[in-house]
Order: sequence, then structure tokens, then C-alpha cells
Amino acid sequence: MNAQPRPFDDFRALIEAMPEADVAAVDAARARQAELTKPVGSLGWLEDIAKWLAGWQRGAPHIDAPLVAVFAGNHGVVAHGVSAYPASVTQAMVANFASGGAAINQICKTFDISLRVFELALERPTGDITCEPALDERACAATMAFGMEALAAGPDVICLGEMGIGNTTAAAAIYNALYGGAPEDWVGRGAGADDAALKRKADAVRAAIALHREHLHDPFEVLRRLGGREIAAIVGAILAARVQRVPVLLDGFVVCAAAAVLAALDERALDHCMAAHVSAESAHAEALRRLGKRPLLDLGMRLGEGSGAALAVGIVKAAVACHNGMATFAEAGVAGKER
Amino acid sequence: MNAQPRPFDDFRALIEAMPEADVAAVDAARARQAELTKPVGSLGWLEDIAKWLAGWQRGAPHIDAPLVAVFAGNHGVVAHGVSAYPASVTQAMVANFASGGAAINQICKTFDISLRVFELALERPTGDITCEPALDERACAATMAFGMEALAAGPDVICLGEMGIGNTTAAAAIYNALYGGAPEDWVGRGAGADDAALKRKADAVRAAIALHREHLHDPFEVLRRLGGREIAAIVGAILAARVQRVPVLLDGFVVCAAAAVLAALDERALDHCMAAHVSAESAHAEALRRLGKRPLLDLGMRLGEGSGAALAVGIVKAAVACHNGMATFAEAGVAGKER
Repeated sequence: MNAQPRPFDDFRALIEAMPEADVAAVDAARARQAELTKPVGSLGWLEDIAKWLAGWQRGAPHIDAPLVAVFAGNHGVVAHGVSAYPASVTQAMVANFASGGAAINQICKTFDISLRVFELALERPTGDITCEPALDERACAATMAFGMEALAAGPDVICLGEMGIGNTTAAAAIYNALYGGAPEDWVGRGAGADDAALKRKADAVRAAIALHREHLHDPFEVLRRLGGREIAAIVGAILAARVQRVPVLLDGFVVCAAAAVLAALDERALDHCMAAHVSAESAHAEALRRLGKRPLLDLGMRLGEGSGAALAVGIVKAAVACHNGMATFAEAGVAGKER
Repeated sequence: MNAQPRPFDDFRALIEAMPEADVAAVDAARARQAELTKPVGSLGWLEDIAKWLAGWQRGAPHIDAPLVAVFAGNHGVVAHGVSAYPASVTQAMVANFASGGAAINQICKTFDISLRVFELALERPTGDITCEPALDERACAATMAFGMEALAAGPDVICLGEMGIGNTTAAAAIYNALYGGAPEDWVGRGAGADDAALKRKADAVRAAIALHREHLHDPFEVLRRLGGREIAAIVGAILAARVQRVPVLLDGFVVCAAAAVLAALDERALDHCMAAHVSAESAHAEALRRLGKRPLLDLGMRLGEGSGAALAVGIVKAAVACHNGMATFAEAGVAGKER
């Protein structure tokens, strides 16, 4: 009998073969920055952003076709009363995205960003993680592959976001599985859980971790057992972006749980990703610390939808404009530093 | 013999009569936010920005005509070797602004912001503050009045910025006069001062404070003796914005020194101002703490030119777009919070 290929093998192979940033392009960007009419380093993070883009885009940094991809999924764990909102809100918000009424629509309009929403079988919530895996292997792998489609439109920067009532509970379970500690360290108020709901979230995470305990050494198992469709799709999207060398802006607590799965598989896996913001969800700051990512923005947001990542596009656009549009000292006839 | 009106009297009268934010408009904005399709408070600071604008603009928040006003001045104190760059760079950078080659030009283009540069007698540097006042009373008052012209174009949000070789030394002297401590607490590396220049900055501040010591109880005297033309003009611009109820985005270390003069005159004087960012200039964070302002951005920038304030315009635009453009729960047919 032949060994059957396992559903995650293709993804492991992609991770194995991940491309790296182009060092020559980073060096060229750094050299240009030293010639621009400003003290060296005085644009701070804007200079780092330009170099980061240059490295992955292999040339002059650009952001002409940014995309926000929002993945929406439903979660069996909502049966435990972990959210302040009913599960029907996921579908209703997807309709709101389609009709242009959500926050993400307005932010995309502000910065001229394309928006694509990927609806992931909302009528079929994932399994209740407290008593079964969220997804079987095949469904998880298929969802990751579907998430890779977010890159099909050819964005030059991609923002990843999500919508899914109950998904901060799934994300907390993933962090707890990957990083240890108590469930209470990782659960937060999400969209507005009160104290009782917060306790139910911690209890659900505790039960899920106990149930799946023996399978959590493999990050892909963590993903499929504790995660959800939108989280699996985001794992796929981050990986596809890497393969295509497209810089990624990570949104908040849930998106970073997907990122954490990849980082646990390979510590280089998020080198093409920047953390757009730290959200008000209590454990996000610690998650970012574990990922080694300093957030660009800290505005107390906790909405999801890719809203924090989309907001960071404005900063990235300014960074690119400065890098490409500024005069050099020679061009402007400005004297350089004395001594 | 009649008492002569003192040059600062008009400004004192303006401060006395400052308008306040419109509470009803803030309440209306808050009420609308509770109806928008998002958990209450989940847009974090974006919600605060919308309410802040609503209060000063007395109605729905808007940012249709943002302006960056950059004031440029030269400083007698540069004779002491306090800057890494020669004084001629101030004029050269003004030319660079005019030809569109500076960082601020690119950021203004990115966010569709108008830019006006106010050149303040660059051929006549202010007095050397270590041995004389920077400005006499009349010149200081006239420069403040000139700064008020920045509002003439009718911006609905104004960003204030500056350019002036040597002006972080003047700003440090102002902070030291207003807030005490040692000169070393307030001087920083500015555009790139090395250790020796940093020591010269502290020595210059020390000498200036010692010389003017007996006059520093009046913030206007602090301004004219230790400041500079661009700093005086910014004081005028902040005050004119208040009179016209135009929200202000403060840039970095030097702009906040102007703001500090007003705050010392009246603690309500900066209620219409938001700190756009905290710069990498070492004492800016402490200056903001003294002003009671939490910065919107923290990106390690230290360029001046209004660059941090202009960058914040992107965030403000997104806040306004969300506030005005989002659907309400009722409009979108989205269920609200359970319980």
C-alpha cells in the first residue's frame, strides 16, 4: 500500500522553499535614503517601511495596487455564549461589506484600496472546538488553498482581515496552544463580552486545549482543531503572499493567530509581514511580542475587518511617496551635514 | 501721560475670550457612533477624533480642506555650533519646499493636503539668546500676528510645522524656562547633533536661562526672549485657529514648544489641538506629558516640516470617513449586541 500524501504536505513544502527578501534592493533603498533632503534616519519608521517594501518587491518600493482581503467564517464554539453578538451578525456584516456600509469600506475609500470579501461557508459553522476539531484535515487544507486566491488579483501590498462572531475565542485557543499559559492570559472582550461571557470564553478555551492536548505539537493541527475557516484561509494568504513576494500588513488579534501558526512552523515565515497595529484586545500586545513584531499603530481599535491594516496603508503610501518623490541633496542644492 | 498698550495685550485678550468646543455637536457625534455597525468604541481613537472635530467644527466632522502651514526662521544661537547643519540650510529647504522636493511635499500629495510655507525674515536671524533676547516685544507680537495669516485660506483642519536650523535649541530653552529641570533634560540631537554639539546646546540653553532669568515668569517673555520667529508665528497660528474653531494637529518638538507657551498662559488654550505624533527628539515625550497630550503616532520621526502632523491627516481622514459613511445597525439590518 502506498503512503497517502497528507493534506498539509504541500504547505510544508511551500514553507520549506520560501523566498527571502532581496538584499541588493534593500541596500539600494538605504543608499537612496542617505541622499534625500533630510537628516539620515529622520523619517524613522517611514524609512524602514520603504526598505521593507523594496526588499520584497525587488526594486523601488511601490504601493499602486493595495488590496484588503477580508475572510469571514462562523464558529461552532459560539454555542457556549462566548460572544456579545449572535452568529447571524457574520452574514449580516458580509452583506454590509457588499453594500459599502462597514468601517472597512470607508477606510478603503479613503486610501484608494481595493476590497475583496471571501465568504467561507457561513451556513456551516466549524465544529465546536470544546468537543471536536473545528475542521477535518482536508477541509482545513482546502480552506488554506482557497485563502491563497486572495493574491490572484495581483496586489502589490495586501492587508489581511477577518469577520467571524466567536473568532477571538478560536484565536485565543490557538495562542494558548502555541504559547502556553492559562486561557485567561489569552481571552479578551472581543466585540464586547461582559465578565460572564469572558469566563465562558476562558472555559471554552480550557476545554478545547484539554480535548486536543495530544495533537497540539503540530501547528497545522493547532490550526485545524482550534481555529476556523477564516483563520485557515489567512494562513494560506500569508503563505501565498510570501511565495509571490507581496508584503503583508497584518491586522489584529485574530489575523495574528493565523500568523502565529506559520511562525511556529518556521521562524522566517513572517519576514514579509508587518504588524499594522496593536489592538485593544488585551492579549494582542503579548501575541505581537511573541511574534517579534512591533506594531505600526496603537489606536485602541478592536474592530477587525482588516481595519487596522487598511489604516496603515496611509502610512505606507506616505513612506513610498517620500522615498520615491523627494529630491536628493545634490538635486536640491541643499548643504549636507557639517563635519 | 497715558499708559501705552503693551504689544502682547491683544493676544492676552484673545486668550481670555477663547471659544470652547460645542458640547451638543460632540453629543450628537457620540450618539451617531453608538448606532454605527460596529461594537461601541471599537474604532478606538478614530471615534475620539470624530468627536473632537465635531465639537470644534460645530456639526458633522469634516476634513475637506486640510492645510499644512510651515513656518521658517533663522536663529542667532547657531553661532554656538548647536546644529549639525549650517544656517543656510533653512533657506535652501524653503526653496526645496517651493520646488516640491521635501518630505512634506510628498506627504501633502499623498493625502491631498494644501501646503503653505511662511518665510520669516531668514536673512535676519533672531538675537543670540545667550546674550540678548531673540526678539523685541514689537517684533514678537508682529510675528505672532503674521502667523495668524495661516488661517486666512480657510482650512477646516490645520497642521503646523516648522523649519529652522538651530530651533531645537530655542525650543529646549522654552521648555526649560516653563518646566524647569536641567538644560540636559530638554536638549536632544535635533537634526543629528553629535555629543560635542549636544553639550554646546545644553550650555547655550543654560546661558540663556541665566541671562533672562528674571523675566521668565511671563510666557510671552519666554517666547520672545528664548524662542524664534517661526515659534512666535506658530503661537499666533494656534491662537487664530482657536478663535476660528479650526482643529489643529501639532507636529513635533519645536511646534509643541510654541503650544507650551500658550498652555502656560491658559490651561484650556490647547483644547482644540491634538498631538499628531511623538518624535524621536528625546524630550518630546516629556513635553507632551506636560501638555497632557497623548500622541496619535509614534513612528520615530524627527524631521519637522510638519511631517508628523501631515501624516496624521491620513488617520483623521479615515476617522471622518468612518463617522460619516458607515451604515447604522438599522440601515444595514445588522443585529445589535445581545443582552
